[in-house]
Amino acid sequence: MSVLVVGSLAFDSIETPTETRDRVLGGSAVYFSYAASYFSKVRLVSVVGEDWPAEYTRLLQSRDIDTQGLSITPGGKTFSWKGKYLSNMNDRETLEVHLNVFGDFNPVLPDEYRRSHFVFLANGAPAVQARVLDQVVGPRLVMADTMDLWIREFRDELLALMRRVDGLVMNDSEAKLLTDDENLVRAGHKICKMGPKFVVIKKGEHGAMFFSEHETYVLPAFPTDKVVDPTGAGDSFAGGLMGYLASKGDISAQSLKEAMAYGILVASYNVEDFSLEQMKRISRSDIDFRMERYRRMLAF
Amino acid sequence: MSVLVVGSLAFDSIETPTETRDRVLGGSAVYFSYAASYFSKVRLVSVVGEDWPAEYTRLLQSRDIDTQGLSITPGGKTFSWKGKYLSNMNDRETLEVHLNVFGDFNPVLPDEYRRSHFVFLANGAPAVQARVLDQVVGPRLVMADTMDLWIREFRDELLALMRRVDGLVMNDSEAKLLTDDENLVRAGHKICKMGPKFVVIKKGEHGAMFFSEHETYVLPAFPTDKVVDPTGAGDSFAGGLMGYLASKGDISAQSLKEAMAYGILVASYNVEDFSLEQMKRISRSDIDFRMERYRRMLAF
Repeated sequence: MSVLVVGSLAFDSIETPTETRDRVLGGSAVYFSYAASYFSKVRLVSVVGEDWPAEYTRLLQSRDIDTQGLSITPGGKTFSWKGKYLSNMNDRETLEVHLNVFGDFNPVLPDEYRRSHFVFLANGAPAVQARVLDQVVGPRLVMADTMDLWIREFRDELLALMRRVDGLVMNDSEAKLLTDDENLVRAGHKICKMGPKFVVIKKGEHGAMFFSEHETYVLPAFPTDKVVDPTGAGDSFAGGLMGYLASKGDISAQSLKEAMAYGILVASYNVEDFSLEQMKRISRSDIDFRMERYRRMLAF
Repeated sequence: MSVLVVGSLAFDSIETPTETRDRVLGGSAVYFSYAASYFSKVRLVSVVGEDWPAEYTRLLQSRDIDTQGLSITPGGKTFSWKGKYLSNMNDRETLEVHLNVFGDFNPVLPDEYRRSHFVFLANGAPAVQARVLDQVVGPRLVMADTMDLWIREFRDELLALMRRVDGLVMNDSEAKLLTDDENLVRAGHKICKMGPKFVVIKKGEHGAMFFSEHETYVLPAFPTDKVVDPTGAGDSFAGGLMGYLASKGDISAQSLKEAMAYGILVASYNVEDFSLEQMKRISRSDIDFRMERYRRMLAF
């Protein structure tokens, strides 16, 4: 089965303590769909400007990512972001954001996308995320990401969306902000009570937590000594997670836990270089090799 | 086999965002020895003042903790510490430290302690830790804890000590400080190269990492929604770890990993109340019950 993702395609300019990159391929839907493509077909919905290089679209297509949902706005410019990582490689400052055509993004699903079983609403305005759901017919699993801006300023729309999704993905600081609780275990359970069947809290270098009515668990990140650029870690995690679920075609508790682990491992590769560079070098067998090491690490 | 611990007994005054406690039972050797006592006999070496209540000594003795190494300084006052936890329950400020008799601590091992197989040097001046090692005959496993003060101001003594111990335990910020490296995986391996056979990096609510020449792994903390007071988490972790190893009588890689898990679980209980309150309520079977849940959590 394929995974539908609706999110951004972007040019990212990145400063880390040791290196910089200017206008490299980025965006939530790029990281998500590339990560998911190790496991399943992907259907992409996004918008770019005329400045978008056709080679980037061809790169995605070469991974069995369907781009008929990608619209190009004549005369428009693509979303661009500039950020700087602090020395811990975890905290970052946003230096510039130019939403450009993404600011007016009104996603319209091609007809054949409407019956998608696995749907990921990458970070975006909750009202826009909801409009995507209005167009989907009978999905089996809908997951959404969000961010502090929507929690602070569009809380009601976000709460309404949360009642319509199966799973919510967010990072630790956002979970604390949403629930006003500093304990992530309590925060996770509070979020479950707000609507979604399960919640995944991403903790960056510390892994990810899963919460549902009956389950609470945490899986550590894969320990890598090479963290070059954390951009896209959360989206590649979600892509690995949903791509794996779509490939299995089931959403049992067991499959969800395996999917969490696959998400963690894909993200561990993603941070090893800028943009998609490391992900472009690896194949599914590399991920499965790391999975063997990861399983051994957690067995005792 | 029994575990020898050399460290502090103290009165702790603690402020958390919701509660305060004044002069409760604390100190590294208290937390360590109580945690180790679920698994093995303990031999304690420490010093207190005349203000030390005999009931605290009896409490330790009731757990098969040998206190003949505890000396009481006539006319002296016991070490006391006052601290305040910030809202994340992870960062803390020290408000007051009165070393009192602990400032002149010159540990002398009773004769029958000298042939201890498992030795834990709780946080203290590296020169004092070294003097303990001078008195021990043929130990099988020596582990030491340290802190930022010794890393900054007694670096040479600490480096000398590191060449004499099997394992070093420290928290994440201390590992970064010692190695000047923000990546904990690289930091862990750098520390191994400084002398110890293995290094354990404690990450508080995010668990603990293990590094040796051939192994790198991370185990998450047990997710608890009840973090009342993190004081002593690191020492109860180390106590559970070494107590378990002493009970097994072996230091294989497999036993070390099980010991890491036991340490994590004992610490997860410890933080659920002030001082030893929660640890006093539980027994080995509670820890084993939680261990079953922990193993299931990490299996997929």
